[in-house]
Amino acid sequence: MKGQLLQTGPGEGFSPPQRLLMGPGPINCDPRILRAMSHQVIGQFDPDMTRCMSETMQLYRSVFCTQNPWTFLVDSTSRGGIEACLVSLLAPGDKVLVGDFGRFGALLREIAERCGAEVETLAVPWGEVLQPEQVAAAIDRVRPKLLALVQGDTSTTMCQPLAEIGRICREKEVLLYCDATASIGGNELRVDDWHLDAVSVGLQKCLGGPSGSAPLTLGDAAVAEIRKRHHVEAGIRTADHDEGEGARIGSNYFDLAMIMDYWGEERLNHHTEAASMLYCARECARILVAEGMDNAVERHRVNGAALAAGLAAMNLQLYGDQSHRMNNVVGVYIPDGVDGDALRREMLQCYAIEIGTSFGPLHGVIWRIGVMGYNSRPDAVLLTLAALEQCLLRQRHPLSPGAAAAAALSCYG
Amino acid sequence: MKGQLLQTGPGEGFSPPQRLLMGPGPINCDPRILRAMSHQVIGQFDPDMTRCMSETMQLYRSVFCTQNPWTFLVDSTSRGGIEACLVSLLAPGDKVLVGDFGRFGALLREIAERCGAEVETLAVPWGEVLQPEQVAAAIDRVRPKLLALVQGDTSTTMCQPLAEIGRICREKEVLLYCDATASIGGNELRVDDWHLDAVSVGLQKCLGGPSGSAPLTLGDAAVAEIRKRHHVEAGIRTADHDEGEGARIGSNYFDLAMIMDYWGEERLNHHTEAASMLYCARECARILVAEGMDNAVERHRVNGAALAAGLAAMNLQLYGDQSHRMNNVVGVYIPDGVDGDALRREMLQCYAIEIGTSFGPLHGVIWRIGVMGYNSRPDAVLLTLAALEQCLLRQRHPLSPGAAAAAALSCYG
Repeated sequence: MKGQLLQTGPGEGFSPPQRLLMGPGPINCDPRILRAMSHQVIGQFDPDMTRCMSETMQLYRSVFCTQNPWTFLVDSTSRGGIEACLVSLLAPGDKVLVGDFGRFGALLREIAERCGAEVETLAVPWGEVLQPEQVAAAIDRVRPKLLALVQGDTSTTMCQPLAEIGRICREKEVLLYCDATASIGGNELRVDDWHLDAVSVGLQKCLGGPSGSAPLTLGDAAVAEIRKRHHVEAGIRTADHDEGEGARIGSNYFDLAMIMDYWGEERLNHHTEAASMLYCARECARILVAEGMDNAVERHRVNGAALAAGLAAMNLQLYGDQSHRMNNVVGVYIPDGVDGDALRREMLQCYAIEIGTSFGPLHGVIWRIGVMGYNSRPDAVLLTLAALEQCLLRQRHPLSPGAAAAAALSCYG
Repeated sequence: MKGQLLQTGPGEGFSPPQRLLMGPGPINCDPRILRAMSHQVIGQFDPDMTRCMSETMQLYRSVFCTQNPWTFLVDSTSRGGIEACLVSLLAPGDKVLVGDFGRFGALLREIAERCGAEVETLAVPWGEVLQPEQVAAAIDRVRPKLLALVQGDTSTTMCQPLAEIGRICREKEVLLYCDATASIGGNELRVDDWHLDAVSVGLQKCLGGPSGSAPLTLGDAAVAEIRKRHHVEAGIRTADHDEGEGARIGSNYFDLAMIMDYWGEERLNHHTEAASMLYCARECARILVAEGMDNAVERHRVNGAALAAGLAAMNLQLYGDQSHRMNNVVGVYIPDGVDGDALRREMLQCYAIEIGTSFGPLHGVIWRIGVMGYNSRPDAVLLTLAALEQCLLRQRHPLSPGAAAAAALSCYG
């Protein structure tokens, strides 16, 4: 289009275009979080740095609704947090049961296989969630060491209820790992009350930050399991260090026993802490805790409901079991006669708004529209609906102009 | 001490204290790099994002002095970049020869062992470097698939010459991997001229950024080796995707074949790109390329020489073979009668300057003082010497006041 700003070249500082990111994540960051990253770096064993690390642990205990002492960050994206938990909890040959109701259930399986685990899958059709009695029966059949589940799978927008499954796992003495990257902050997640043994997340959804740090929390049973494989690496190992009896953890970078030695009192050298991402993760948690976790969940619920109401009022069909939809993302079928990818391009090029499609069997079948973190706001919802209405009208989709805004506004009371 | 600024608490935004970081890294970041991280995030498949990624690849080709198309980032600290290279190049049972002249040689061994490789070590005493004929003989004896080496090992301040070893490896058809985290930007590194097959680095040394992104480059032979183990994960795999014949790579997160699919034309979903760290890595490279790689190396050489001259003029003994010292870090013996850790605390508390000790056998024996990236400047060198002189005088170390500054200044001409 004519009238564009001049693009920067590789010799200049990068200037990203202004966008409203209403896909399944990443999302626009809260400006306070962006500012936090521009603070100067300090040394990793500076007393002010270790204080910052301890405060970050404390803040994430509130985010995860847990008392777990071992609540800290892995320096990777959320995907690395998953791998850190699985590679540290699963030794080669261990049996693991993976719940699969979308693309990210398949990812858990992929990662568990690389750990050398014996992987069994309990799958339900995309758009549904697992039932507790199915899970109980599968555990009795497979007798796994660990059950791995996603809480919110953005590929299908489904949110897996976990309280009852947590109770079952505790009773049957199976460890329960959960990837709550896409759900945390926008949907209730009670690590202690629900008996979740290990949970990892990322910043780029309802925590309102960029990708690049993976907060996680480990309960006592998970810590005990990981400690069995404790190892201190050559170059810093002394005669005072005990070696665990279990098989050495398959990754050095994601060895949670070593990362605990780093975040713990001994502060043993492992990686060089990514200080800017630490500042960022701390600020994400600080903002969310100041809002209150319950208030944040309610905000996501209201904005998600307004978006869903607006989409339905545009003569679009919502995707999946709405009673189990994540608060922070809505799936909607691309209507007959509309080119889904062309419409997404028009949304981006003409209105600077990004929405998503999905993966695998849902690619080109649904759009996914998110209301996450800083973008979980009425103006972001109403602007997205207004632009979408314009794009749908240009593709001759039959709708009643203005109905979407009215439906959304009615949710805001 | 009285007179301190009030510390912030966990409920407030973190405000790091002002420090001059003159240890072996991390270092103070160039303010332009900090500002780059505060740019707003855009979506990972946005055309402006993929342009930013391509420009970053282009900039790092200049940093690495290579034409390698596969020059990109891994979303982890530098340690993760090492693991990504080794786990992707080494299948279980593969033979690897590790050159060990410090703590980070030991780290290469630790990581290679976790890959299931058969690891042989060629070690020389700390403070020395490997000789090419030693390396050639060890290769003939071990017949490894890959030789893994550190270029600059900050634990000993030694810089391993690589040109001749690269020629030997090429001749003997052994892959050569190099960890150049601590050396790049401050010491010559010519990936193509020296036949380095795979090199990974981090931002937190002479690139002048924070830890949290690992740039790497792969030559054709390394790419061919990695492609043999190509795999596309369930959930996004289609019938058009080929599966490699080799053993699947042991890590999902560090699977360079998948990460190449993500950075390449197909842009297959893998992790969610850490956009802020990408902006940061791009700006690190942009600033260095604008200065010119040779100019940057010369700047580090001059500041390192001035620091070393200043330390020697303070009646201190330099550590290790000075003809192979890295330009950007100087090791110096802690003199008799001086409490090394107490002096480092005084440097930090009274002058807000951080210097380092070292690991293992050198802990408490030497200090390490860095002149890296943004901190490779005359004022940083002169200020560090001035404060160190005060601390040494308080511990009654015999020295000639003012001699250090004079010696350093004479290096600046």
